Amino acid sequence: MPGAGRAAGVRRLHPQPSEEPPAQEEDQDLLLAAAYVSDAQYNRNVPFETSPRAIRLYYFYNHWTMQVAIYFFICVDLSLALFEEPALFPLPFLATSIAEVLCLTAFFGRLVHFAKVTPQMVFWKDTKNICIMVTIVIRRTFRSIRNTLPDILYVFLLFVFSVLIFSLMALKLFGDRGLQTVEGLPYFTNILDIAFELYVLVTTANSPDVMMPAYNFNWWYSLYFITYIIINTYIFMSVFLAVVYNNYRKHLKNEIRKLAYLKRHKMIEAFNILKVKVGTEFVVTEARWKQLARIVMPHISGPHLELLLRISDEGQKGHVDKMNFIRLADLLNIQVVTINIKRHPLEDWMPRVYQSSASLLVQRMVRHRIFVWVYDVIILINAIFIALDEKNPFISYAEWLFLSLYIIEILLKLYTYEPRAYFGRKQFWNWFDTLIIIAALVATVANTTIQSARKYNSQQILDIVLILRILRLLRIIVSIQRFRLIVTTLINIGPTILTFGGLVLVVYYVFAIIGMEAFHGKVQFFDPNFTTPNALVCGNPGLKDSAFARDRYCKNNFNDLASSFIVLMELTVVNQWHVLAGGFALVTHQAAKLYFIGFHVVVVILIVNIFIAFILEAFFVAYSLEKSEVETAIEKKIQELGVGIQEEEMQDGKLVDNMDAKDGGFSGDDGDNKRKALKGLYFRIASKKYRTVDALLQQMFESEIAPEDEGPSLDEILNFSAGDVYPKNPNFENSA
Amino acid sequence: MPGAGRAAGVRRLHPQPSEEPPAQEEDQDLLLAAAYVSDAQYNRNVPFETSPRAIRLYYFYNHWTMQVAIYFFICVDLSLALFEEPALFPLPFLATSIAEVLCLTAFFGRLVHFAKVTPQMVFWKDTKNICIMVTIVIRRTFRSIRNTLPDILYVFLLFVFSVLIFSLMALKLFGDRGLQTVEGLPYFTNILDIAFELYVLVTTANSPDVMMPAYNFNWWYSLYFITYIIINTYIFMSVFLAVVYNNYRKHLKNEIRKLAYLKRHKMIEAFNILKVKVGTEFVVTEARWKQLARIVMPHISGPHLELLLRISDEGQKGHVDKMNFIRLADLLNIQVVTINIKRHPLEDWMPRVYQSSASLLVQRMVRHRIFVWVYDVIILINAIFIALDEKNPFISYAEWLFLSLYIIEILLKLYTYEPRAYFGRKQFWNWFDTLIIIAALVATVANTTIQSARKYNSQQILDIVLILRILRLLRIIVSIQRFRLIVTTLINIGPTILTFGGLVLVVYYVFAIIGMEAFHGKVQFFDPNFTTPNALVCGNPGLKDSAFARDRYCKNNFNDLASSFIVLMELTVVNQWHVLAGGFALVTHQAAKLYFIGFHVVVVILIVNIFIAFILEAFFVAYSLEKSEVETAIEKKIQELGVGIQEEEMQDGKLVDNMDAKDGGFSGDDGDNKRKALKGLYFRIASKKYRTVDALLQQMFESEIAPEDEGPSLDEILNFSAGDVYPKNPNFENSA
Repeated sequence: MPGAGRAAGVRRLHPQPSEEPPAQEEDQDLLLAAAYVSDAQYNRNVPFETSPRAIRLYYFYNHWTMQVAIYFFICVDLSLALFEEPALFPLPFLATSIAEVLCLTAFFGRLVHFAKVTPQMVFWKDTKNICIMVTIVIRRTFRSIRNTLPDILYVFLLFVFSVLIFSLMALKLFGDRGLQTVEGLPYFTNILDIAFELYVLVTTANSPDVMMPAYNFNWWYSLYFITYIIINTYIFMSVFLAVVYNNYRKHLKNEIRKLAYLKRHKMIEAFNILKVKVGTEFVVTEARWKQLARIVMPHISGPHLELLLRISDEGQKGHVDKMNFIRLADLLNIQVVTINIKRHPLEDWMPRVYQSSASLLVQRMVRHRIFVWVYDVIILINAIFIALDEKNPFISYAEWLFLSLYIIEILLKLYTYEPRAYFGRKQFWNWFDTLIIIAALVATVANTTIQSARKYNSQQILDIVLILRILRLLRIIVSIQRFRLIVTTLINIGPTILTFGGLVLVVYYVFAIIGMEAFHGKVQFFDPNFTTPNALVCGNPGLKDSAFARDRYCKNNFNDLASSFIVLMELTVVNQWHVLAGGFALVTHQAAKLYFIGFHVVVVILIVNIFIAFILEAFFVAYSLEKSEVETAIEKKIQELGVGIQEEEMQDGKLVDNMDAKDGGFSGDDGDNKRKALKGLYFRIASKKYRTVDALLQQMFESEIAPEDEGPSLDEILNFSAGDVYPKNPNFENSA
Repeated sequence: MPGAGRAAGVRRLHPQPSEEPPAQEEDQDLLLAAAYVSDAQYNRNVPFETSPRAIRLYYFYNHWTMQVAIYFFICVDLSLALFEEPALFPLPFLATSIAEVLCLTAFFGRLVHFAKVTPQMVFWKDTKNICIMVTIVIRRTFRSIRNTLPDILYVFLLFVFSVLIFSLMALKLFGDRGLQTVEGLPYFTNILDIAFELYVLVTTANSPDVMMPAYNFNWWYSLYFITYIIINTYIFMSVFLAVVYNNYRKHLKNEIRKLAYLKRHKMIEAFNILKVKVGTEFVVTEARWKQLARIVMPHISGPHLELLLRISDEGQKGHVDKMNFIRLADLLNIQVVTINIKRHPLEDWMPRVYQSSASLLVQRMVRHRIFVWVYDVIILINAIFIALDEKNPFISYAEWLFLSLYIIEILLKLYTYEPRAYFGRKQFWNWFDTLIIIAALVATVANTTIQSARKYNSQQILDIVLILRILRLLRIIVSIQRFRLIVTTLINIGPTILTFGGLVLVVYYVFAIIGMEAFHGKVQFFDPNFTTPNALVCGNPGLKDSAFARDRYCKNNFNDLASSFIVLMELTVVNQWHVLAGGFALVTHQAAKLYFIGFHVVVVILIVNIFIAFILEAFFVAYSLEKSEVETAIEKKIQELGVGIQEEEMQDGKLVDNMDAKDGGFSGDDGDNKRKALKGLYFRIASKKYRTVDALLQQMFESEIAPEDEGPSLDEILNFSAGDVYPKNPNFENSA
């Protein structure tokens, strides 16, 4: 591993024996190694200093409360724009200023904290180093842009060229015909207008209106538009998607490669700290290994740790070698569900009643498939009732009946299944069910109380009750295996979609601020029942006879942040965006259209395509689910150790089966169901379906690095660039 | 290779020695082997009988004229609908009937011919076998559908479920508010209307209008629509693309796997026919091998054949072994350009003049980069002149000037470069240039003649002149390397896009026929200047006050095939499709909307997504261009043999350089430029850029089959199903 030790970030990492007494040094080594391991485990990005204070600071920095706090402050800071002029909910200037200062303080504190826990702290003091840093950052950014942009830029230029050529052709073909649009305006007489109209046609927003005058004039002119649509709308837009997707994959692969090598690098650092020489090779003793695992995962159960040790120390030699040590982060990351088969609390409290034949009958009933089917039928009947008119008193009473039925269902299930298992961390649908029902119960009761007390329906509460009532119908998805599978995939994508939502939010925010600067107050919204001439033109005479006013788009304005976001959302959906652009161009200047075209290029051509690329990639990964090498090892060990220990309590075994069926996906996935008892515990590898896409991708890449490959130096890893990577696609080899 | 010999199709293939005298048998063996090789070379699909007559029939069947003829008859048959009632160009019934009968005869003849050349001819006579065949076909089709549909179907059902849930929610939230649309109609009061509107919102065609009444009423209701758009428009539509894409790749891989194994299978059959035992192994003698190659490729040049033999018979042992024999089809498929450096014809005819210093100066000038730049500037100036008003006589004279300049350019190039090289098969841009200029010259002259003779402009010719004038500007693309690269990729995709266009045409055709049945004559087109009440409602009072009539969509009707195609094209582009659907529903029945929804599902959700998947795949393949193993072998051999033979004539070498630069793409692709002289010829492997996507894919897959892998039996190959294939993606291994 040449160069790794010489990397700037880790220069001061090796403990200085002279500074600390030996005993404390022991502990500190362990802490340091543990920090490395948990870094590797969670893909954190900072090597750190070695003093106990620094390590404490580091743990504090990575604590989840700090992260939640910083996200909270970011949200507060961004939402301030809602309350500042132009405001949706005006607040005094002093209040928003204080909030702003608070947020900035929090950001600054976080930055200082970051500087404290990174070794760059020493580094910052040297101006020369800062210059080098800045240069490196600029160079890397520039290289990244240089590698990414040309592909898109040249396609974009060619596309613009094509639009211009077609504009010129349209001017020559239609300009002198004296044709008119539906509104009676001259048709295709100005090259700039033509180019705009044709750009709009690429987004399909003005099809087929833009074609109709020429088509009405002569049948053959439709061929011009068909050619245009095939070339620019279909082929070029697909090429944009292809280019964006290709770049997305390159960057994805680069990121994952970087993470995978960094992880290995950190594990090797941790190994080097703890290693002792036994015989001819360096190893970590069993005792140190256990201490380390306990620091990294304080809540790990004894049997689980024992299981991991048996995997890492295959020959039970009392120590763990380098290869097995490196796997520790992965081992800890695999969620081994230790199903601590507990008896139902009711069985403990009143065993006679719970084990009575009536009680057993109820339990058997609830576990039966017919119980599920009966409730599916109830949901369907409920759906019909919801669709009917609720003015009918009989139907509003039926609502109470359905609510009671659902509550009875949950109570019965809680009676039959162990409550802690029923509300397990991964039991998404149980949580969903219960929350929906409880919320519906609370809202319905609140609504009825208000109604009987004040004799009027609270609109907000009624809306919530209605929505909750309909959301209950989603439970039908749980019953259909294939639906559950698709939804589970979508839920797995969830976290990354949220990250993606952050990107969209930032871009929206920037465009919203620009839009408010440019168009604030130009368009006013009046109550839709107002029909004064002023209200009909959105308070701006410039909009007279415009499509904007005719379609009553007055509320689509940039007068406050919320409205701006809605307008930008409508622009993202694309349809009618030319009407919006045209309207704002009328009240300001024709150049305003550039703002809308810019938004379209950035959001629709770039960001929406990245989003589609992301969903495609996520689904392809989901289609190629397979077990990792580490997981297989754990499963094998669980099976191995399980031999000879007989299964406990058939009844609870059933419960486990039932849970399996609940979160089960691929029914052929027998491996998941293999669980054996170890010291009274059941182990089971958490189903792969609940893994995020990133984790799956990383696993795939790791399976391709040879176990003995220690990767390039830290410097090289941090400088990986997507330009070096060319994803081969399609590739017909198996990645196993 | 167990089972291959027993496959039904090849049961009678082995020649029966008793039937023929030995000498003729020799020839026949060779013919049979040659047929196998050319089958493998062009991915043809039929094993065949062994009599000389059958082989002759087979060659005739695969002759290109027969294929062109059959495509011609298909086109004629399909276009008959243009001339039959409802007709765009009415023809007498007798004429169309005769054409129909002619086409059907041609199809039948082709079918009989096919039956003749396939071994199934014998097969057909046995009724039992036919039953088995039919069963197999049904089983395979069913299996294929069963494998493909569930993925899409369940996603689609979930999507429909989601739309219905949202419809129910909308009914409850907005149904009782008494809101009105812009047209003053009740808003969201009927569950079926809501479901239709929300389906339209998925296609984005009625955004943001469908939201405005609720949004105007209360800001918060926009959240409902944003949620709907994110879930149904963005996520579900991307999931559809992902599922379609995934299935596309599975089928693609299956097809390619089948073709690759079939090819190998055929080559092995050919080898088995010609093999003789030399020492311990079976081989094909050099003489037979050469005879075979000459039959398969009658026009192959001697040196080229010599080159291939040296590659196949590495050790010059006088025979070709099995492994090398199997490569023959690939070797023949690689286009080795034998650049037969010829002198310019003018140099032969009048060497003194052509080699005079003035002539040499002209040639050097034309070859200089500045010559290209000067013409780029001329094109740009021409573009400006085109954009200006051509009424000005000065500008219309300038047009003649530009035309002369372009003609002079072509003449100069023909003077400098060897004309046959200039108009080489792969010199796409030279052909483009010349054809555009000649056509423009002809059209301009024709226009001027008509104008001066009859004092009026022929509209059609003028339009053509204008378009040709503008198309000349495309030449600027040639000058920019990056543009040329993208365009070349697109041109490579061309042939497959045409196949794809065939699929679209068939689907359009079916929908057009249904549409004409249902909506023929319901909507009439009147001259746009007509403003009688009847013309304003497209001749149908049912359209009064409808958006269809207001937008003047009267010409969008199903009154003849051409109009129907235009309407379907507009529906494919999606925008305003709900207006069209609404209009036709008004003049017939609300159920007519089902026709439009069905079209949207089939064409936009399935076919357009397949198209996008295809473009994505094609671009990914283009991004991972690499040399095949066979190509590398040829190149190595060319280089090896080239050593020791010095390069000829520097001047002609320049020509080759120039041609390289013309069709060059990746400038770093040095391998392509390696060419050496062999017996006075230059060899060069034709640039990979001109390979079709299918060929590249097949190559990739073949590189993954081990050379000694003879594949499964013929039966198994023909029964490959996409369900057995799971493309792994993303996959970070190299496919090299």
